Amino acid sequence: MSQPAIIGQSIPRLDAPSKVTGQAIYTDDLKMPGMLYGKLLRSPLAHAKIKRLDVSRAKALPGVKDVITGADIPQVKYGNWRLVPQSQDELALAVDKVRFVGDEVAAVCAIDADTAQRALELIEVEYEELPVILSVEEATAEGAPLIHDESKGNVSLVRKIDYGNLEEMFAKADYIREDTFKVHPVQHAYMEPCSCVAHSEEANRVTLWTSTQTPYIVQCLLASTLGLPENNVRVMKVMVGGGFGGKMELRPWEFCASFMAMRTGRPVKFTLTRADELAFGRRRHAMSIYSKVGFSKDGMLLAKDFQVMLDGGAYNAMGPTATFLCGTFGNMLYNYPAYRYFGRHVYTNKPPASAMRGFGAPQAAFVAETQLNMAAEALGIDPIDLRIKNAMQTGDVIPDVATISTCGFKECLQEVRRISGWDEKRKNPVKGKGLGIGCFSFISGGVFNWFNTKYNFSAAEVSVYEDGTAQLATMACDIGQGPDTAMRQILAAELGIPIENIRLIAMDTATTPKADLGSWGSRVTLMNGNAVIDAAKKIKEMLIPVLFEEMDLNQIHDIGFADGRVFVKANPKKGLTFGECVYKALRGRRGEPLTARGFYTPRNKGLVSPAFSFGAQIAEVDVDTDTGLIKVERMYTAHDCGMPINKMAVEGQLEGAIQMGLGYALMENLIMDDKGRTLNTTFLDYKMPTAEDMPPGESADVFTYEPEGPYGAKEAGEGLAIPTAPAITHAVYEATGYRCMETPITPEKVLRALDKIK
Amino acid sequence: MSQPAIIGQSIPRLDAPSKVTGQAIYTDDLKMPGMLYGKLLRSPLAHAKIKRLDVSRAKALPGVKDVITGADIPQVKYGNWRLVPQSQDELALAVDKVRFVGDEVAAVCAIDADTAQRALELIEVEYEELPVILSVEEATAEGAPLIHDESKGNVSLVRKIDYGNLEEMFAKADYIREDTFKVHPVQHAYMEPCSCVAHSEEANRVTLWTSTQTPYIVQCLLASTLGLPENNVRVMKVMVGGGFGGKMELRPWEFCASFMAMRTGRPVKFTLTRADELAFGRRRHAMSIYSKVGFSKDGMLLAKDFQVMLDGGAYNAMGPTATFLCGTFGNMLYNYPAYRYFGRHVYTNKPPASAMRGFGAPQAAFVAETQLNMAAEALGIDPIDLRIKNAMQTGDVIPDVATISTCGFKECLQEVRRISGWDEKRKNPVKGKGLGIGCFSFISGGVFNWFNTKYNFSAAEVSVYEDGTAQLATMACDIGQGPDTAMRQILAAELGIPIENIRLIAMDTATTPKADLGSWGSRVTLMNGNAVIDAAKKIKEMLIPVLFEEMDLNQIHDIGFADGRVFVKANPKKGLTFGECVYKALRGRRGEPLTARGFYTPRNKGLVSPAFSFGAQIAEVDVDTDTGLIKVERMYTAHDCGMPINKMAVEGQLEGAIQMGLGYALMENLIMDDKGRTLNTTFLDYKMPTAEDMPPGESADVFTYEPEGPYGAKEAGEGLAIPTAPAITHAVYEATGYRCMETPITPEKVLRALDKIK
Repeated sequence: MSQPAIIGQSIPRLDAPSKVTGQAIYTDDLKMPGMLYGKLLRSPLAHAKIKRLDVSRAKALPGVKDVITGADIPQVKYGNWRLVPQSQDELALAVDKVRFVGDEVAAVCAIDADTAQRALELIEVEYEELPVILSVEEATAEGAPLIHDESKGNVSLVRKIDYGNLEEMFAKADYIREDTFKVHPVQHAYMEPCSCVAHSEEANRVTLWTSTQTPYIVQCLLASTLGLPENNVRVMKVMVGGGFGGKMELRPWEFCASFMAMRTGRPVKFTLTRADELAFGRRRHAMSIYSKVGFSKDGMLLAKDFQVMLDGGAYNAMGPTATFLCGTFGNMLYNYPAYRYFGRHVYTNKPPASAMRGFGAPQAAFVAETQLNMAAEALGIDPIDLRIKNAMQTGDVIPDVATISTCGFKECLQEVRRISGWDEKRKNPVKGKGLGIGCFSFISGGVFNWFNTKYNFSAAEVSVYEDGTAQLATMACDIGQGPDTAMRQILAAELGIPIENIRLIAMDTATTPKADLGSWGSRVTLMNGNAVIDAAKKIKEMLIPVLFEEMDLNQIHDIGFADGRVFVKANPKKGLTFGECVYKALRGRRGEPLTARGFYTPRNKGLVSPAFSFGAQIAEVDVDTDTGLIKVERMYTAHDCGMPINKMAVEGQLEGAIQMGLGYALMENLIMDDKGRTLNTTFLDYKMPTAEDMPPGESADVFTYEPEGPYGAKEAGEGLAIPTAPAITHAVYEATGYRCMETPITPEKVLRALDKIK
Repeated sequence: MSQPAIIGQSIPRLDAPSKVTGQAIYTDDLKMPGMLYGKLLRSPLAHAKIKRLDVSRAKALPGVKDVITGADIPQVKYGNWRLVPQSQDELALAVDKVRFVGDEVAAVCAIDADTAQRALELIEVEYEELPVILSVEEATAEGAPLIHDESKGNVSLVRKIDYGNLEEMFAKADYIREDTFKVHPVQHAYMEPCSCVAHSEEANRVTLWTSTQTPYIVQCLLASTLGLPENNVRVMKVMVGGGFGGKMELRPWEFCASFMAMRTGRPVKFTLTRADELAFGRRRHAMSIYSKVGFSKDGMLLAKDFQVMLDGGAYNAMGPTATFLCGTFGNMLYNYPAYRYFGRHVYTNKPPASAMRGFGAPQAAFVAETQLNMAAEALGIDPIDLRIKNAMQTGDVIPDVATISTCGFKECLQEVRRISGWDEKRKNPVKGKGLGIGCFSFISGGVFNWFNTKYNFSAAEVSVYEDGTAQLATMACDIGQGPDTAMRQILAAELGIPIENIRLIAMDTATTPKADLGSWGSRVTLMNGNAVIDAAKKIKEMLIPVLFEEMDLNQIHDIGFADGRVFVKANPKKGLTFGECVYKALRGRRGEPLTARGFYTPRNKGLVSPAFSFGAQIAEVDVDTDTGLIKVERMYTAHDCGMPINKMAVEGQLEGAIQMGLGYALMENLIMDDKGRTLNTTFLDYKMPTAEDMPPGESADVFTYEPEGPYGAKEAGEGLAIPTAPAITHAVYEATGYRCMETPITPEKVLRALDKIK
């Protein structure tokens, strides 16, 4: 497929210079005259009734401008799943009881942060402790105390999938295995802790600058919790230092800043600390998983029974979506003639889990890929061969979900086998060394409208000027992943002008076109990219008639846009510069500027996603059997992300994903005591891979042209974070015989498996 | 004419609470990380060659981040009259020579203001003094040195108007008088000294927050001087503390901040001091005026020969417009069968004069009204009767200029006579007391496109939401005069929703629709108001079909919008709430938001303005003949501003205008020594009327329904500043026999006229 030159190039992100030179402005950099500093009082207990809450001494402290508790705020519960109102279970400040260590009990704002902190210390709270539930097993046990009165058995949501005849297929199976797994919680650990500034510039209006992935969602939920019309709330972002799913909801500090800004008439800022983030922040769901899978003796998958309990923590957050997607990813990648999923989202007295890069898929894939590797060994089939036998391909249908419009999975398996030297290396095994494989599929944005937006899923507004430049206004949200650059590439390709000529205005709910659901589920490139193309096409429809008139063209002619020119395709010398053409169109419109809006909502694409990506990864490890230390020596990746828009950005996603996957597999873990208190709340104790830990790697691109994607693109952001943990697990097994069924793979577990310690 | 309830009400300005509580954010309140502080080195001489300019010591000072001179910047001259490129005579920093005390020679930016100031002191400049020209008479004298080489005789622009047979009419005249007048310069003295912050967020792009009346003009001129496409420059305003014409151009600090922000990669702020403003800032033109006027013996005006030299100072600034308008206002208000105008804009070695509230009219009216009062006495006709005889009325034509579509001038004269008790008081004169009259007419925005914009003159974007609210985005510029409120009133009236439900987004060249020429010439209410109505009508066209479908309406039905409802006019109970109607329309559009743009450019309205306002004012004074002190005891005003949109805002304009008119007549004056150095650069020395000096007043509204205006509105902002000085002059004459021909009327002049001093 011939693409415009700007598509698929490696373009350094346009926001990079300001970031690397320290000029980029993040939310905490914002300062306003009279600005107050906010702080949150959090519960020290994981489950307790609030017997008495006295803020009078805090209010009396000089310099304190406001103190609020759950009693002061509208009792309007919020949550991202607006489509299911009973799932909305959160209030910004606790009323009557607290449900996790860190649950927000009161908020203060004062003339400086120290005064706000002192005020917190003056708030008196008397708690009555309640039994603490820290696991899904305790939570769902008979007679367990309820964390939310409304949720029987502490299960807030159930998702079932069932197709094919499971019993019949298991009966036909030659080989069946049943396993249970546990996966642990990790934190997004974005570089920028959450921060927001609220300003009420007029009565009953508030403007909020916040570090978010989803300004539109924050706008809507903030409005409903403040009791204001949506349009009275304006949400903007400046630079955002990462999100990974952790910044896609309304958060208590956003509400408190806005509420107190309206009460005090002064701007109010909240900025979290790293300790706040690690101890109380959103995280990836821990899960307890049972999986039963059946094969024919020649390795064909026949059936899978997949039962998952997600440890949701104290509130739903994005747990419902994780519960849905975990079931969806349980039957992706391979063809399962029969599949049953039973997913339960369970409340516990822990900080809420929510969306995190992969959104249910890393856990589902860890189980599926590990079981495949176990089955391959038992069946005596090479793990890659086993996968190829069962691999999905273009045109496959997932019942009730989607038709796979493009799938380069088999090619990925072949490529990763080739670049890793899989066959030769496995022929000559070396003790303590091993190769392991993990695979993934992921969505390019979601179809299911859990937020119940009335607007299109993505929107873009394009304006063009007689100086040959253009402006792109969009609510699509760059949180570090690169759409500010990619969207301009797409527009540059459509209009045939240099990318430098395009100004981008992004992410202001009042001035960028409604709506965009935000940056999550790897939706931005496909969805917003399509909206950009739609807007650009409308602009071109305004320009093309100018050429027909100027050049006296026969109506059959086609018009091209490239190299800053608008021209007759059959005779490219015949044309105008882009700017001249805009100028003439503007004159012809008697001064009405050339602006058009484009939109995208997936249509006829099933329930889950308009497009799916695929890939395979092989980890090569060296395990020190004396210390249990695992060194990942090399990572090999092959992935089908459609046609990349910005190759360098895709490579960046791959590198970041490997780093995150390594951390997930080997070291990151939120460790809690038996009172529900997180013990590792600094980066000294919460271990993450550093640049030094990064293995060299090699990757192979498998290009498919996704017809639903802009210029053939599909997901490239989250999927790559999925295969690393199962690949390393497999490699460690090959190196040592230790198969991890309960993440992470620590040296301690390796040594225990090798009987080196007890 | 029946108006919607919201039109003509007295509505406190929606920005008022934030201003009176100190919460409003002005440009100087903006702070950014890494922001640098800029300062300008100004010439101490009024006319000199720059022989040597050495910034090396300033550059070497620690903390200094950039120092620039005229040699560093693109040599692209700017000026508001883009239509006449040779009128563009300014560079942000002087090259080769300086032309007034204060001419900008170099700019520095440093980590703090003190360092920037120290750096200025380290810049070495060697000047060669040139002869200094401080009056239009010296400037135009034979052999005068040229301030700009290109301008022969130091005249930069000539404007001539000539119609009727002047000689013939003067020959017919029974009474002719010839007089010369001099009017002095005054400063806008807006509350907020100029300030700007520039930030270059990406290579070759700059965003400028600035205290301006004309963001679009600043955007365009800044782009051309920086050598960037217009779209690479974004101009925004926050709150602006007044402008009065003094903030409607690109200014050197705006250029320097932007240029140095791009060079340093850091935000750069400039904020002027009050002393800067008074010594170097724009001001109202001083003029030397010759006027010859002829009457029949029964008081009918026959001919006028009007010759004006405007003291433009060192650069054109908005002088060309003042030169045009002075001639236009020389023949307004009354019918002149023959009229000749010869206006010359003259360079002198003074800070440039420019637009200031009235824009040539206060000077022209001072002369015309004073001569009318002198003629009335000579002809033995009451001054009001004389005016009524000659007054313009609806339908009158000013050749080559306009047809007066509405004119309540005669009614104003009758009203002001009535409320002031003119006839009785003149029958019983009291020594030392007097009544005087002055009248005015003014434009409602200009037609002549001196800025040569390619866009419509005004634009508005309206979006409506299913929560019953709306958003109005516009580049119309609230600088304290109230359009942020008035535009919302107009939209509220059009859509029939409460004004509180309308959010306003204003004045950001990147996100508000292109273009609006800014706030000057009293153009905003009429021009932007019409653009708002145009956009609202398009929105209504999206909503009306919903009602027809929902209610199964016969196509002849009319639809009303009021009280938050959309309804069948013939049966108002039949309808939907506004929000419901939007919701259904949004659903019918499958999620495409309801947004429409409206525009306004005057068509078929001649050369000057789409509509003219009129009014008359009577001043009642008490003169202390021992001290010469003039106490204005009472002001009576009657004015025809069409139908007011916000009555309270019109009253505010009247009060402010009287204050400004008092200052102009009696005390404000920029005093200069013979080297061109301004001597009164603080508010202790530059005297302005305070609240204590404000006379009580009475006013009468004369309502006309201007068909070209939104809801019948026309000008109400500048015109009222015009009649006060001639009215006071006349009153002082009546009280003392002293007729001021050279403003201002100081106690010293009164005493000299009374022979009390020499």
